[in-house]
Amino acid sequence: MICCDIGNTTADIYEKDVCRKVLLSEFKPEVFIGEVWYVNVNQSIQDQLETLPNWYNIELLVEREKYYSTMGLDRIMVCEAIDDGVIVDAGSAITVDVMQGGVYQGGFIALGLRAAQEAYAKLSPALDMSFNFEVDLAKMAKNTPDALSIGFLAPLIEKIEGLGKPIYVSGGDARLLSRFFREAKVDENLIFTGMKKLIDKGAKC
Amino acid sequence: MICCDIGNTTADIYEKDVCRKVLLSEFKPEVFIGEVWYVNVNQSIQDQLETLPNWYNIELLVEREKYYSTMGLDRIMVCEAIDDGVIVDAGSAITVDVMQGGVYQGGFIALGLRAAQEAYAKLSPALDMSFNFEVDLAKMAKNTPDALSIGFLAPLIEKIEGLGKPIYVSGGDARLLSRFFREAKVDENLIFTGMKKLIDKGAKC
Repeated sequence: MICCDIGNTTADIYEKDVCRKVLLSEFKPEVFIGEVWYVNVNQSIQDQLETLPNWYNIELLVEREKYYSTMGLDRIMVCEAIDDGVIVDAGSAITVDVMQGGVYQGGFIALGLRAAQEAYAKLSPALDMSFNFEVDLAKMAKNTPDALSIGFLAPLIEKIEGLGKPIYVSGGDARLLSRFFREAKVDENLIFTGMKKLIDKGAKC
Repeated sequence: MICCDIGNTTADIYEKDVCRKVLLSEFKPEVFIGEVWYVNVNQSIQDQLETLPNWYNIELLVEREKYYSTMGLDRIMVCEAIDDGVIVDAGSAITVDVMQGGVYQGGFIALGLRAAQEAYAKLSPALDMSFNFEVDLAKMAKNTPDALSIGFLAPLIEKIEGLGKPIYVSGGDARLLSRFFREAKVDENLIFTGMKKLIDKGAKC
């Protein structure tokens, strides 16, 4: 069985515990043989997927009432992977969600690292600079790159740590962000763990 | 004596404890009579100001070595107003600075409320919505507007409160932001308090 996470620029294909990334321009869902479960946020590809008899939308297995109605399916999947903890999915946005005893407790959405840096740059050429990922978040800054890095990262990291639960970090910026936590488990394939758990459970089938 | 804070769209003119805002298109520095001290971030108007014998750049009175070299003069002014506390200047960016015994301790820069909302909107049409300023920041969100509001505001407010000092809030979004603090003094004219303190002290003259 294959799991597939389709975004707006790439498709992540997870098979036999290995994940490979394919550009959407080179992604041909019709060539896959056997059962494929997918999460898809890309409307332009959805129609094709629905015509393929071996492609199954993971949404079929989700108890949506556990979550809120506008919550993204990719975000629900990382939550499904964890019974107790804070799940941080650091992509274009950074979603932070709390699970307790397998029950969704709510969450919040921060800007992703790139989005935040772009937003600073838009404010002023003087703020158009990369974050300093070596900065000490416990200090106050005395230069501009540190002031931006601490201004964006310190409140967010402290808020997440203050939730007082085990921290799981996923998404493209997982490693970059995780270095700021005292303790966090990085798992870039959390979305697939969630998908597999749902498939195994066959929750709503 | 008049104090003037010149930005990119308006000039704030402070005289006899009253502040009035003038659009830059209608701002005529040459008609002012008597001493005017100014902070100016607008390069296009700087040349004219330097030709006027009654206009004085407040920079002349600042001990720049107390701060860091790229720190904005408007930000230095709000710091000069306070000897002990956290100064939050909520404008296009939200600057947060710590003063202790009149000595600058450092600070950080967060995005302004509008900049943050625009950055979320740019990520996805699903995130293009206004913050909910009635939200309870102590909770986790279970809908998208609350998820954005809590995602941006809760970490920032908690970080500022965690600094453990009296909080002073200034800038155009001072009132909007201050409602989230347990205790904070709102003073939209903090920049002029700082300027007047410096002028009275005549620090470097």
